[in-house]
Amino acid sequence: MKRYLPLFASAAICAALPVSAQDAKTYPAPSEIVAAAKADEWVAIAPSDLLVMDLAPDSKGKPRRVVIQLIPAPFSQGWVSNIRKLAAAHWWDGTSINRVQDNYVVQWGDATEKKSLPAGLAVVPESEYVTQIGKGFDLKNFLPNFLAAFPDYAKKFPEVAEIDSKEFEIQLKRRMESTADPYAKGNRNLGGWPTGGNYENGTFWPTHCYAMVGVGRNLSPDTGTGAELYAVIGHAPRHLDRNIALVGRVIEGIEHMSSLPRGTGALGFYEKEEERVPILSVRLGNEAKDVPAFEYLSTDSDSFAAYADARANRRDPFFNIPAGGADICNIPVPIRRKAN
Amino acid sequence: MKRYLPLFASAAICAALPVSAQDAKTYPAPSEIVAAAKADEWVAIAPSDLLVMDLAPDSKGKPRRVVIQLIPAPFSQGWVSNIRKLAAAHWWDGTSINRVQDNYVVQWGDATEKKSLPAGLAVVPESEYVTQIGKGFDLKNFLPNFLAAFPDYAKKFPEVAEIDSKEFEIQLKRRMESTADPYAKGNRNLGGWPTGGNYENGTFWPTHCYAMVGVGRNLSPDTGTGAELYAVIGHAPRHLDRNIALVGRVIEGIEHMSSLPRGTGALGFYEKEEERVPILSVRLGNEAKDVPAFEYLSTDSDSFAAYADARANRRDPFFNIPAGGADICNIPVPIRRKAN
Repeated sequence: MKRYLPLFASAAICAALPVSAQDAKTYPAPSEIVAAAKADEWVAIAPSDLLVMDLAPDSKGKPRRVVIQLIPAPFSQGWVSNIRKLAAAHWWDGTSINRVQDNYVVQWGDATEKKSLPAGLAVVPESEYVTQIGKGFDLKNFLPNFLAAFPDYAKKFPEVAEIDSKEFEIQLKRRMESTADPYAKGNRNLGGWPTGGNYENGTFWPTHCYAMVGVGRNLSPDTGTGAELYAVIGHAPRHLDRNIALVGRVIEGIEHMSSLPRGTGALGFYEKEEERVPILSVRLGNEAKDVPAFEYLSTDSDSFAAYADARANRRDPFFNIPAGGADICNIPVPIRRKAN
Repeated sequence: MKRYLPLFASAAICAALPVSAQDAKTYPAPSEIVAAAKADEWVAIAPSDLLVMDLAPDSKGKPRRVVIQLIPAPFSQGWVSNIRKLAAAHWWDGTSINRVQDNYVVQWGDATEKKSLPAGLAVVPESEYVTQIGKGFDLKNFLPNFLAAFPDYAKKFPEVAEIDSKEFEIQLKRRMESTADPYAKGNRNLGGWPTGGNYENGTFWPTHCYAMVGVGRNLSPDTGTGAELYAVIGHAPRHLDRNIALVGRVIEGIEHMSSLPRGTGALGFYEKEEERVPILSVRLGNEAKDVPAFEYLSTDSDSFAAYADARANRRDPFFNIPAGGADICNIPVPIRRKAN
């Protein structure tokens, strides 16, 4: 049986439609599409998947809270598990932001490099930089694993389980050829996160978009414990994909990090103790106080597909020429505080 | 006569070479390639092509200077000419930075929107968002115009003038298919600047990379005078390409803008007068005091080609998996103060 495979049908990258100035007025902006999304297209983020970091107040005494969403399975769970242990041990309390490199990253952790780590942290191998899901073009092997890895996707498109092998391979190849992202032929927003994928060998990985949080490390084969973390504050450094573990994203308060003074040392490290920004506490969301509920727009929803298309082909009145494409980091997943 | 056309030979995007860990140690990092470039591969930037903006000192009394390089012909010269007039009239003195939107732009100009503009500013049409060079696949029409528009290129590759029409078309098409940038099939660094290009219709344009400076405008068909300017401080907003005029790039001091507090009003505008950052003066580089000499690495140089390849395929020891590609904004043109 041949049918169109939704695995690739909701591609984020669509051809630009030629539109007249008259037509353009009828197209909603991406933000309007998101605002009009139905309540059941939003997915609640569990408080236990949040990492809440309180920095010392700013020079005017204003509190500075940064909220990070930890990445769910099937990605980077070895490091995420370490991070949960570090937060439970209150390990980051009294550490600091030590590095702010313009157009690159903000990095935090123990500036003394002498603080003992809690017991029981895993040493995670480099192989975990990607998630292996089946063997790509072998449908029988790939599909059950893929659907198990992304259950929301399976719920949205139950018919995908009926696809036949030949059509699957044809559509996979078409998808890989048609993508517009230079860094990952199989890129898409999947399970609520920006991902790259190589369908040929069945590997998937999260991508280094703005505000993504990763694990600092030394030279290979060290992959870092998760105690030293960074957030992207510039143009997506996609060359880091598959070379460093990504463990989450800042969903609120990125401005408390991106607007910090840039470090004047090598790689943007602060040179003096007084430049470092003290971290008062880091807690999991279910342990922190006064944490609002957050939700993200399901990347398997119709509204997300319309939003992604509108990001790639701006037709709202300000624009004269739609780009006709967008890289994955220019289609950020909408995230908001949940209305009461 | 068939020969390989250098117009496309020095493509920034090259296939990743599989390398062993042993080999990797012998590959220099992009920064090492730039440091080893020969003196004659660097191109001096004329002081008259600089726009020097002095902001009010920061809270610790430190001076804040932002140096912008104006874009040369064949791009955006209508607006650049207006900007030269505005600087000569000292028009920006006493204006301010009025908008800082996280992961997007910093914008400056007259917050009152009442200050009179100097006489003689041109009204530049939308057609100037792109530069028309010949008619693309028609070689006889295209090539002389292209070489006239980018004279450094013509000097570097004199043999390009001998290319034959059929081969030209074949190579143009190959180039357009092989590029890895989603926003511009003909993208490349050209004449020292990141550009997109549609070789089929012969149009070229500068691209919205980090630190690029553009002309604020209202709804189409208004294209802005150049009095209201912005700089990109986040992931490249490439959907703005061909929809807004780009007139330069910040080459020093971007951190004085990117680290400013984010505005809390709509679109990141500051809501209170005291939040705005005063602009003390803006002068052309030949009128400003204490301006160092700057130079950029010729994008037609061998060192630039090696640098671009290394940016797309990181093989220095930190990296395990080279990306195999890079978007144009991840291959920033190296710019530095000229050694005395």
